[in-house]
Amino acid sequence: MIVVMKPGCAQADVDHVVDLIRQYGLKDHVIVGTDRTVVAAIGDKRGVDMSAIENAPMVDAMVPILKPYKVASKEVKQEPSVIDIGNGHTIGGKRFAVIAGPCSVESEKQLMQTANAVKAAGAIGLRGGAFKPRTSPYEFQGLGEEGLKLLAKAREETGLSVCTEVMSVTQTDLVAEYADILQIGTRNMHNFNLLAAAGKTGKPVMLKRGWSATLKEFLLAAEYIINEGNQNVILCERGIRTHEQYVRNTLPLAIIPAVKNESHLPIVIDPSQGTGHAYMVPSMCKASLAAGADGLLIEVHPDPEHAMTDGAQSVTTDSFATTMDELRKIAAAVDREM
Amino acid sequence: MIVVMKPGCAQADVDHVVDLIRQYGLKDHVIVGTDRTVVAAIGDKRGVDMSAIENAPMVDAMVPILKPYKVASKEVKQEPSVIDIGNGHTIGGKRFAVIAGPCSVESEKQLMQTANAVKAAGAIGLRGGAFKPRTSPYEFQGLGEEGLKLLAKAREETGLSVCTEVMSVTQTDLVAEYADILQIGTRNMHNFNLLAAAGKTGKPVMLKRGWSATLKEFLLAAEYIINEGNQNVILCERGIRTHEQYVRNTLPLAIIPAVKNESHLPIVIDPSQGTGHAYMVPSMCKASLAAGADGLLIEVHPDPEHAMTDGAQSVTTDSFATTMDELRKIAAAVDREM
Amino acid sequence: MIVVMKPGCAQADVDHVVDLIRQYGLKDHVIVGTDRTVVAAIGDKRGVDMSAIENAPMVDAMVPILKPYKVASKEVKQEPSVIDIGNGHTIGGKRFAVIAGPCSVESEKQLMQTANAVKAAGAIGLRGGAFKPRTSPYEFQGLGEEGLKLLAKAREETGLSVCTEVMSVTQTDLVAEYADILQIGTRNMHNFNLLAAAGKTGKPVMLKRGWSATLKEFLLAAEYIINEGNQNVILCERGIRTHEQYVRNTLPLAIIPAVKNESHLPIVIDPSQGTGHAYMVPSMCKASLAAGADGLLIEVHPDPEHAMTDGAQSVTTDSFATTMDELRKIAAAVDREM
Amino acid sequence: MIVVMKPGCAQADVDHVVDLIRQYGLKDHVIVGTDRTVVAAIGDKRGVDMSAIENAPMVDAMVPILKPYKVASKEVKQEPSVIDIGNGHTIGGKRFAVIAGPCSVESEKQLMQTANAVKAAGAIGLRGGAFKPRTSPYEFQGLGEEGLKLLAKAREETGLSVCTEVMSVTQTDLVAEYADILQIGTRNMHNFNLLAAAGKTGKPVMLKRGWSATLKEFLLAAEYIINEGNQNVILCERGIRTHEQYVRNTLPLAIIPAVKNESHLPIVIDPSQGTGHAYMVPSMCKASLAAGADGLLIEVHPDPEHAMTDGAQSVTTDSFATTMDELRKIAAAVDREM
Repeated sequence: MIVVMKPGCAQADVDHVVDLIRQYGLKDHVIVGTDRTVVAAIGDKRGVDMSAIENAPMVDAMVPILKPYKVASKEVKQEPSVIDIGNGHTIGGKRFAVIAGPCSVESEKQLMQTANAVKAAGAIGLRGGAFKPRTSPYEFQGLGEEGLKLLAKAREETGLSVCTEVMSVTQTDLVAEYADILQIGTRNMHNFNLLAAAGKTGKPVMLKRGWSATLKEFLLAAEYIINEGNQNVILCERGIRTHEQYVRNTLPLAIIPAVKNESHLPIVIDPSQGTGHAYMVPSMCKASLAAGADGLLIEVHPDPEHAMTDGAQSVTTDSFATTMDELRKIAAAVDREM
Repeated sequence: MIVVMKPGCAQADVDHVVDLIRQYGLKDHVIVGTDRTVVAAIGDKRGVDMSAIENAPMVDAMVPILKPYKVASKEVKQEPSVIDIGNGHTIGGKRFAVIAGPCSVESEKQLMQTANAVKAAGAIGLRGGAFKPRTSPYEFQGLGEEGLKLLAKAREETGLSVCTEVMSVTQTDLVAEYADILQIGTRNMHNFNLLAAAGKTGKPVMLKRGWSATLKEFLLAAEYIINEGNQNVILCERGIRTHEQYVRNTLPLAIIPAVKNESHLPIVIDPSQGTGHAYMVPSMCKASLAAGADGLLIEVHPDPEHAMTDGAQSVTTDSFATTMDELRKIAAAVDREM
Repeated sequence: MIVVMKPGCAQADVDHVVDLIRQYGLKDHVIVGTDRTVVAAIGDKRGVDMSAIENAPMVDAMVPILKPYKVASKEVKQEPSVIDIGNGHTIGGKRFAVIAGPCSVESEKQLMQTANAVKAAGAIGLRGGAFKPRTSPYEFQGLGEEGLKLLAKAREETGLSVCTEVMSVTQTDLVAEYADILQIGTRNMHNFNLLAAAGKTGKPVMLKRGWSATLKEFLLAAEYIINEGNQNVILCERGIRTHEQYVRNTLPLAIIPAVKNESHLPIVIDPSQGTGHAYMVPSMCKASLAAGADGLLIEVHPDPEHAMTDGAQSVTTDSFATTMDELRKIAAAVDREM
Repeated sequence: MIVVMKPGCAQADVDHVVDLIRQYGLKDHVIVGTDRTVVAAIGDKRGVDMSAIENAPMVDAMVPILKPYKVASKEVKQEPSVIDIGNGHTIGGKRFAVIAGPCSVESEKQLMQTANAVKAAGAIGLRGGAFKPRTSPYEFQGLGEEGLKLLAKAREETGLSVCTEVMSVTQTDLVAEYADILQIGTRNMHNFNLLAAAGKTGKPVMLKRGWSATLKEFLLAAEYIINEGNQNVILCERGIRTHEQYVRNTLPLAIIPAVKNESHLPIVIDPSQGTGHAYMVPSMCKASLAAGADGLLIEVHPDPEHAMTDGAQSVTTDSFATTMDELRKIAAAVDREM
């Protein structure tokens, strides 16, 4: 931490800051510059909130130096993590992993039709919501455990790994019983009790970035899971809230190199939530692969016009198959396997 | 819902949209304009996701007409709601309600000192976190039930109503036992299970707006609580995430007239979270009152330089008292009581 | 400037950064911490772009310490500036200054009616666009010099100071001939040639913040004007672009205490552009005054339903008069004059 | 335009809106729904600001139906435009066009070294700033005409087309004399006089999206240029301002399919401005190509550590050559030529 003093501060002001730093158990180092005096606080106190020093007289600003996350960072582990998601499938490493399926599990017929289609097109995982977080209490809230059973049945039939959302601490054990990957949705990225509960299951966790979370907060949320002894975290970018209106969310693909620079965890992209419009999905799938992502999470529906949820951003099974063909060509060009 | 067709669409495209609308149980109404044909879907289907129609051939855009929230809106109840928060205190109506206290309950001494000071200065409620949502797993997570007991003790001594955060469905009953107002934090505004659980307690709920929630989503979150039979919802604006860096969050005070225009629920402002810097808090307190807010939620600490959390944005008890004096003068000027 | 090295950097990496710093004519100061080494660059080189050091091996981040603006800052001038806007009027200091008028000058009748009404209600300035920056080339572009002449006529009749926008370097002299205050619009805050040209006229400049400008950029834009020898800069906040849709722009009133903390320049608020809806304007006028602003820039129209531009956010002359009465009461409560 | 009435509006309110619509020369069409009455205004009046109707009694909201841009849209021209940028080069169509070079022209040696290197690596254009828009008045403002002459010399030597920024109406003729493509920077996207002046030169214009411009505003800015009889507009996305801090700007690549859906104009991506960090540039180059962009605008410097401007985001000539090799492989995979 660097404490920047205001111009014209007195020696007593600097001494007071030095005192506060020492009270936190840190070492101080004062640099008197031409215009400004700064005081560096030396030592590793990631869990201590020193922002209060900002209140001291003649303090202008506090500048953090140490990254607040640790076990998710490359400081601790250099080589990229490869996560085993069961059924012989992995995420991370050379292979580009595609998980696809409907937004919501609506019926056995809808799910099996989709599962078989995405399997045939080359997906390794099946996504589908049994518990649905809905902005409005009047909307379809999902089939619940019945949906989980259908997902498990689809896995048996197709060999796809199942990824489905868990919304609450009280659902964790139930969902972990059926799913291969527990998804933490964007609305719950800061639900720290849920992060810990998902961590405790030991199952791979697909952690979606919050709508307005910073990269730092995203990695700290992963840290909550890893701190329960569960290293199997897959990061998922699904778009952020900005002023843009031609998309439902703005998809910031530069997070791919940023995550690769900071962390050993794999990162996948959700181009369906990330744009909100089916016609944009193929373009963003290809961009994600070329940018270096580890995989995709895509909403596919056999009949999007009649989907119960997220129809506008679901691609048809045909469109999905075409996109997979195009992705295979790009994968070869960028030395990835599919 | 209005479906806007692309220019040059065929009659068959329009017919197809008309079919889809009828399948949703709605009436259709086609308007052929100079450049564009639009199809209106008539009827109240708030819970149905019709966005899938966007996928139909030659559809350009979908425009919602009906507001998705109902029981939180003025369509259902015109007169402003006044919420009883116990101990003879209310929020909403002519009185301007100030709830103040430390970010975290740290110790009995710290809490009692703050409670007595804010009571003396004119607050009607005491805020303080016993369970703390912390971005990093390494940070202080609160005193838990011990903190709740201290809050209850402070209420006994001062007559202040107690407002404290509940972070998880499993904590709801415990927190409801001690608190007068259950606070749902910004990170949990979209935690729908928690909203319902808080609703079921029947206790007043202080609902903080999500970092990037729209006004529509904010009112729909209130709707989740009200739908459990609990009308006692207090909306709280605490700042949104934007590109601005001189503040921790951008505080959009125009939400005050917007909420007054849309809803019967009271709205209070949190200028501490809403700015992140103690020196800005008095200015934003005064602005909130003048803009028509129903109250404030302020972080006050007897020694902010040594606060365990949020020290940078906590005002001293002295500064709080001065601000309350200034607020009383403005209250008189805008015909409010304090 | 502080250069933060990555963990595990070699001495040669640090030496290389030290070399680069010396090449910029600055002194270096190395601090070896527990986890990180940082290198401070000491000396005042505000105009030098050292960001390139980020490219050096094992450099993690660059942290600026010195504020980039100077003559707009309180480092150079502590006491608040009071700007003379002619006709016996000033902006800054104890008096709260209200400038009001139509978005566009449409006709002599419309302008005179508005000017007389706002004068009667207590305004000291008249706003009105003669040259209009319009998002679409098909929209009304203003009356041009004819509009300027009408504004000058209104000044003669009412004694109000005239504030009107200059859009281009080539218009500067013409507009300066008629106006008391040259307005630089939000779209031109980064039009550095225009800033310099407006500065050269010596006339007071009303500088509107860019839609997505940072506070730092806002003050640097003022610096461009002041550097031409023109101290008469009035800052104007008019809302920023965010995800919010219930407003046309998000109005961040915390910029008022932030500017007061950083700069000696006066700041006024435009609640019309800042919200986009007439019904929100009175609330934001009152909030601005209570927050400590130096004045307001308000769109007023005698018949907003038929305004040629910005009708949705223009208040009627009656509504304006009522708001002025309310503002006078608040002004008394916060020790300001009107 | 659709006017949505509030619930409970009277017939007189609807009649009043109908009157206003007729006053604008449009036809009205009233639809009485279950909960809401809406009034459609039929006819093409793109240049008329009808927002004022929002002020009429019992009007809830105004919903635009017609897109405000015309000549930039696919309504007017279906097939993608191919822009001739001289020297035998084009932008748009099957070929993927790369324009590369330094942020600023610093010296003959620096420019020629860069030009030769990017030419050898496969670029078709040379970028380089002679007039620099700088946030701070203390920073390097460019070499001016001397820089333009060096760019022209580099073109002679290499056959690359020259793209350079014009900042002001008064510079337009001078820059047009030397450049093949006039660049309008992000800070000037709303500088309507400059757009018109650039349009009048007839030269191809590289139009950068404003930091917080909507897609609609971006296309309307193109419309300003095209309306001067100049069809040669190349759109350039260079990142938007959001809450994200790990990047200098957030690069929203979904604008590529959005522009392809709306407009016939080519779109290129600037991954240097779009991220702010050299290490992210190769990843975003590849993503842009895979997403369907028509080209790239990249900052390349022979010695970024000593670049006078934008060093942090400039790639070395070696890194550029490697990226071009990777891009050629992807181009083959997505059926594009390079």
